[in-house]
Amino acid sequence: MYRAKVYVTYKDSILDPQAEAITTALHQLDFPELTQLTCGKYFELVLDTTREKAALAVEQMCQKLLANVNMESYRYELIAA
Amino acid sequence: MYRAKVYVTYKDSILDPQAEAITTALHQLDFPELTQLTCGKYFELVLDTTREKAALAVEQMCQKLLANVNMESYRYELIAA
Repeated sequence: MYRAKVYVTYKDSILDPQAEAITTALHQLDFPELTQLTCGKYFELVLDTTREKAALAVEQMCQKLLANVNMESYRYELIAA
Repeated sequence: MYRAKVYVTYKDSILDPQAEAITTALHQLDFPELTQLTCGKYFELVLDTTREKAALAVEQMCQKLLANVNMESYRYELIAA
């Protein structure tokens, strides 16, 4: 059993209006110390298989469904569970 | 300068149809080894302040804007950047 933590964020070249809106809102809420903000998706998966097969499966899941590889980049961690 | 990584996920008691839809889709894409999936939001913030003030600011940001504390739980890590 492996637990995979997957982070999907927009590539730097992609404009992210949601992140800009959140930044503006937080500045208005009086957090001037905030200098940069990016937002993305977070998935936590539990896989009932070996480490090698889990890594391969997570890679394929990201490519096929969890991330839009044209606009988003992904990274993941595998932890024995 | 501190970098904060914020993870916002639904509380266990909250029904998450998006996670169920993704699980079903991944099973249909032939990943039977997937036994559990949760999804949530991921924020990466850069704060130009001391460690104590950064921790306090992130806590308040989560309470006020980044998470809906009725339905969602949050956790964060602070890393010197």
